[in-house]
Amino acid sequence: MKDQLKHKIDFKTKPLGSLGQLEDIALQIGLIQQTLTPEITKPTMLVFAADHGLADEGISLFPKDVTWQMVMNLVSGGAAISVFCRQNNMEMKVIDAGVDYDFPVDLPILSCKITRGSRNMRKEPAMTLEECQLAMQKGAEFVKAEAQAGCNTIGFGEVGIGNTSASALLMHRFMNLPIEECTGAGTGFDKEGVIRKAAILREVSEKYNPQTPLEILATFGGLEIAMMVGAFLEGYRQNMILLVDGFIASAAVLTALQFEPDLKSNCVFCHTSNEQGHEKLLKYLDVEPLMNLRMRVGEGTGAAVALPIIQSSLAFLREMASFEEAGVSNKE
Amino acid sequence: MKDQLKHKIDFKTKPLGSLGQLEDIALQIGLIQQTLTPEITKPTMLVFAADHGLADEGISLFPKDVTWQMVMNLVSGGAAISVFCRQNNMEMKVIDAGVDYDFPVDLPILSCKITRGSRNMRKEPAMTLEECQLAMQKGAEFVKAEAQAGCNTIGFGEVGIGNTSASALLMHRFMNLPIEECTGAGTGFDKEGVIRKAAILREVSEKYNPQTPLEILATFGGLEIAMMVGAFLEGYRQNMILLVDGFIASAAVLTALQFEPDLKSNCVFCHTSNEQGHEKLLKYLDVEPLMNLRMRVGEGTGAAVALPIIQSSLAFLREMASFEEAGVSNKE
Repeated sequence: MKDQLKHKIDFKTKPLGSLGQLEDIALQIGLIQQTLTPEITKPTMLVFAADHGLADEGISLFPKDVTWQMVMNLVSGGAAISVFCRQNNMEMKVIDAGVDYDFPVDLPILSCKITRGSRNMRKEPAMTLEECQLAMQKGAEFVKAEAQAGCNTIGFGEVGIGNTSASALLMHRFMNLPIEECTGAGTGFDKEGVIRKAAILREVSEKYNPQTPLEILATFGGLEIAMMVGAFLEGYRQNMILLVDGFIASAAVLTALQFEPDLKSNCVFCHTSNEQGHEKLLKYLDVEPLMNLRMRVGEGTGAAVALPIIQSSLAFLREMASFEEAGVSNKE
Repeated sequence: MKDQLKHKIDFKTKPLGSLGQLEDIALQIGLIQQTLTPEITKPTMLVFAADHGLADEGISLFPKDVTWQMVMNLVSGGAAISVFCRQNNMEMKVIDAGVDYDFPVDLPILSCKITRGSRNMRKEPAMTLEECQLAMQKGAEFVKAEAQAGCNTIGFGEVGIGNTSASALLMHRFMNLPIEECTGAGTGFDKEGVIRKAAILREVSEKYNPQTPLEILATFGGLEIAMMVGAFLEGYRQNMILLVDGFIASAAVLTALQFEPDLKSNCVFCHTSNEQGHEKLLKYLDVEPLMNLRMRVGEGTGAAVALPIIQSSLAFLREMASFEEAGVSNKE
C-alpha cells in the first residue's frame, strides 16, 4: 500500500515532492486507513476539563475558578475552540473529567467527574492509581462511542488551570530532562513567575519516586490528562486519526506512548505551541507539526485551526489529476 | 481604531497574546477595513499564466509546453490550486497573460495575451516597456472588476515554466543580491542544474543595465509577473486583502513596492516556499508568513491553503466572548 500511495502522490500534476508536508500527511493517513482515497468523517473535538489541586500553590497566572468559567464559555460558544470548531465544521464535545464546580445539569457537558479535581501534589499524589485508571477507562469509552457513531478523526483539547505544570512534570519524568527545561509561562507568567513555578515543580518532583507509567501519570498528571491518555490509546485501537494540539496534548501522547509505542503512527501533530518545552517535546517525539502560529491557548485550538490543512492533503490525493489523466508532460 | 482593535483582541477570553499570529492578522485586517468586525467577502484566486522565452535555454526541469498543459489542467479542475480553491470556497479565475498556445475558445480562460510569451532574455529584454505597461494595466483591470463585484480578498497565483528565473532576476536587482543567492531549484533541479541555471541568469543580468523599476520589470520579468504587479497595485488602491503565495508572488510584491511602498500593509503572506531565495526575500520584506509546509508548487496554492487560517483570525475577533461577556475572571 505504501508504494501504491507514493506512486499516486508522485504522479499528480506537480513537481515531485512539491506539496511538502501535505504529501507526508496524505501518505500517513492513507497508510492508517489502508486506502488510496482516505477520508475524514465526522471530525470531533473532545475537550477534557479538570481542576488541579496544585493550582492552590500559585503555579498559574489565572485563578482556579477560570476552569469552570471557561467550561461555561466553551459550551455557550464564546471560547476560541468553540469558534474554530464552528468555523471548520468540527463537532465539539466538552467533558467534565473533574472540575471543582457543580454545573447546571441542562448544559451540554458530558459529566464524568472522577473527583472534584486532582489533589495538591505538593502534599500528596495527584490521583490514586484507581482514580487514574478510571479516568483512562472513561476517556477510552468516550472515544469508542465516537468511533461507533462513524467518527474517524478525533481532536484532543483540554481546559484546566494548572495543567501546564502537570504536563511539565510528566515530560520531565518520561524524558529524563531537568524540570526547568520543561516549565514554561503557561497562561502568561513573566520570567520570575516561571522560575517560582519551576521551583515548586522541582520540590514536587523530588517528593515522589513513582516507577511505572501508570504510577507516574497518577502522581504527576491530572484527571483531564489521564482521560486524554486513555482516549489516545482507544483512538489508536480504533485506528482513528488523532489530532494532537499543543503542550498538554503532546504530554498526554508522550504518556500514552509508554503504554503503546506504535500510537504515534496515528497522530497528526498540528501546532508547535509557544509554551516553552513544547518544541523539545516535539523534537524528542521526532515529529514536525503542521503550523507554528505562536499560539498558546490550548483547548485544542491548534488542531481545530489545522483541520482544513489536513483536509487539503486528502483533497489533493483524491482530486488532483495525474500527469497521464491531464495530458501534462512530466519532467524531461 | 488601532487601540480599539487591540483592546477588543486583548479582552477576549484567552491569555493575553495567546492567539499569536491570528491576533496579528486580525489587527491587520481590522486596520485595512477600519472596523472592529472585519470580514472576507467573495475571496477570489487570480491565476496569471504566461510563457517565458528564456525557457528555451534549459532553465527549467519541465518543458515549456507544460505552461499551456497546466492551464488546461487548472480549468478542468485537476490542478492543486483547483482542488484547494474548491475545498475552501475560493473562486478561481485563470488569466492567459501570454501563453504560447491557442486555447479552445469555449474554456473558462480569461484571454488577455499581451504577446505569446516574453522574449528570450539571453537575446533581448523580456518585454518592451509598452508590453510591460499594458500587462500591468490589464492586471489592474481584472482586480478592479473583482472589487466592483463585491470581492475584497484576492489571492495571487501563477503558472509559467521559467518564472522562478524571472523572479530571481527581479529579486537580484531590487535587493542588490548576487544572482546565485536568488536562484533555486524551481520545479526540481538538482544542485548541478541550479548552478547551470544561475550561470545563465548571471549572463542575462550582466547583459542589461535597466534603471527604473518599470525598465527592470520589462527587462527581467514576465508577462504574468507584470500583470500581477499591476494587480497588486490596483488591489492596494481598492483597499483589498492581498494574499501572497510563494516565490513568484513575493517577487511581484517586491516589484510593486517600488511603485507603492505602502502596499505591504494590505498583504498577508501565506506560505514560506521551499524555493531557495524565498526566505531571504521574506526577511528583506520583514514579514512572517502563516505557514511553512515545505510546498513549492506555486499556482497560488499557499494562499488557498492558508485562507481558512485567515478566516480563523477574523472568526475569533467577531465571535469570541470577552472576559466580561463570559463572566470569566481575568488574571489576578
